[in-house]
Amino acid sequence: MAELRQNLATREWVIIARERARRPNAYVESSDRLRTHERAEHDPTCPFCPGNEELDLERAREPAGPDWQTRIVRNKYPALAEQGLLTRSFNGVERSITGVGYHEVLVEHPFHNTTLALMTDEEIRAVLLMYLRRGKEIAADPRVEQIVFFKNHGERAGASLLHTHSQVIGLPIVPGNIRHRIEEARRFFDDTGQCVFCTMLADELRRRERLVAVNEHFAAFVLYASSSPFHIWILPRQHHASFLHVAEAEVMHLAPLLRDVLFRLYAHLNDPDFNLLIRSTPTKEPENGYFHWYIAIVPRLSRSAGFELGSGVWINPTLPEECAAFLRGDISATE
Amino acid sequence: MAELRQNLATREWVIIARERARRPNAYVESSDRLRTHERAEHDPTCPFCPGNEELDLERAREPAGPDWQTRIVRNKYPALAEQGLLTRSFNGVERSITGVGYHEVLVEHPFHNTTLALMTDEEIRAVLLMYLRRGKEIAADPRVEQIVFFKNHGERAGASLLHTHSQVIGLPIVPGNIRHRIEEARRFFDDTGQCVFCTMLADELRRRERLVAVNEHFAAFVLYASSSPFHIWILPRQHHASFLHVAEAEVMHLAPLLRDVLFRLYAHLNDPDFNLLIRSTPTKEPENGYFHWYIAIVPRLSRSAGFELGSGVWINPTLPEECAAFLRGDISATE
Repeated sequence: MAELRQNLATREWVIIARERARRPNAYVESSDRLRTHERAEHDPTCPFCPGNEELDLERAREPAGPDWQTRIVRNKYPALAEQGLLTRSFNGVERSITGVGYHEVLVEHPFHNTTLALMTDEEIRAVLLMYLRRGKEIAADPRVEQIVFFKNHGERAGASLLHTHSQVIGLPIVPGNIRHRIEEARRFFDDTGQCVFCTMLADELRRRERLVAVNEHFAAFVLYASSSPFHIWILPRQHHASFLHVAEAEVMHLAPLLRDVLFRLYAHLNDPDFNLLIRSTPTKEPENGYFHWYIAIVPRLSRSAGFELGSGVWINPTLPEECAAFLRGDISATE
Repeated sequence: MAELRQNLATREWVIIARERARRPNAYVESSDRLRTHERAEHDPTCPFCPGNEELDLERAREPAGPDWQTRIVRNKYPALAEQGLLTRSFNGVERSITGVGYHEVLVEHPFHNTTLALMTDEEIRAVLLMYLRRGKEIAADPRVEQIVFFKNHGERAGASLLHTHSQVIGLPIVPGNIRHRIEEARRFFDDTGQCVFCTMLADELRRRERLVAVNEHFAAFVLYASSSPFHIWILPRQHHASFLHVAEAEVMHLAPLLRDVLFRLYAHLNDPDFNLLIRSTPTKEPENGYFHWYIAIVPRLSRSAGFELGSGVWINPTLPEECAAFLRGDISATE
């Protein structure tokens, strides 16, 4: 029989539908697919490849030296504008705010045929330090309330350019989505005196069956209440509400773990499309004991439909425990 | 400049990104596409076509006469099981409930080449009355807390079978999604003494610029804070918290309006894929003054990516007011 599981932190329910049971190896992408490492190292038409910076001069956020390792450009079709006054309007029904904020692209590597899963620890550190630095700069703008870092890898994940990149959006509002998570976390803290994420993390480390990778400072596990197959959270083991407060020394430890997790997805599922995002507190909120920043990785292996839209409940046909075992290599791809 | 808009009822924000501006006619589907009315009336391999009921005998929910107009079958891969005890388990971190409930398919018409947009008012009434009847039967099961009616039209909307059908799921929990909407509506009622949906509806009827269709009992409009192009709500003009309390006389008036709205989408956008869903109160809650049932229609014309996952904020590149004018025929497709 199927089972409904609740995420302790978000209180969102999922249906783990064993009747539809798909084994983890059912998600391995076709070998016909051109994987990232099989592409050419340089694409003359790609605006993110070295030598092509001039193709898109007006987009450059800051000048890139000839030997750049990472760089920041403005999104060509920005959802929000850097220049402009934040003004609010409300007529009793319609509430709006001018679309001021930031929408930038973080180019992660000069090569066209790489991705985080294939980079060295040093290269991933450079990417994470760029996230941190640019995040702090954007957070200093008083119009910004929330920063969202995200990565779309592959077309099904919404990427329009193949060259490895992330995006950062600085919003003039706190999304309801984040507010709800903070309220639930505060409620758990009120009841127990504990951070709900620390509680979940301790349980995963004890239990181990859903762990994918762990080191001294970070742990990655498939969620008990995964909304889709291989839905993974990476949590810092030291409590911090905001990603922007991570010490650079901690970033050193995040890089190898992130590479490990993404390489497992790349190798075991044959370079699947995925979204990666960082959840963190609103920029103006102080550090606190109840919220805990984290990275979520969501491979795009299933599709939402009317039921998910109507209920927010996802139907996941694959056991999270089996997905974790598969990524650890405990279940072979041909089993 | 872009604009952030907030939905008064859900408090969710969207970004209306004028910089990316796409005119409504940019969403017209290719004419190469085989539209529903161009298919054969009967498909010998389709389990929902008349004469094929035996293909799937174990799925029949109730016997269908030889001249059935609508029929109900169990989903072949049900997310929830009808038989079984509802048991709960919680170990301090992992909370689960056995997956008991209902997951059924409502076959809407014997013909393989039709859809709600193309049916007669009488045929749509039969579908809506089937929704109501089966909804009430499922709601009588004490294990059920929430009923979700939904329809996936087309592959991008998650439909695996083309033959026109809806689905109904009876859940043993109230999804967080619904709880949040109810709490927000209650809060608005506490502040103003009004139903927030009635307030929005009155405003749309006065303003008219986002109206798509209206009759004595129902109104359809493109949402001020549409999460995607052509995102439409249909609201009953008479306040009711639950769809299951709709009088059969009211259903008479819903049918022509629903057909009108769906036919406008079909004709102007060339049979786009879409999801349709009904939002309504939990089955065990009494009628109340603050929540208002409604139908949401979401054409699948854009794709969510990491930003939407991470923030819950959608980026919509098309003005809702222009989408409404396009569906009313005020803007021509070639403009």
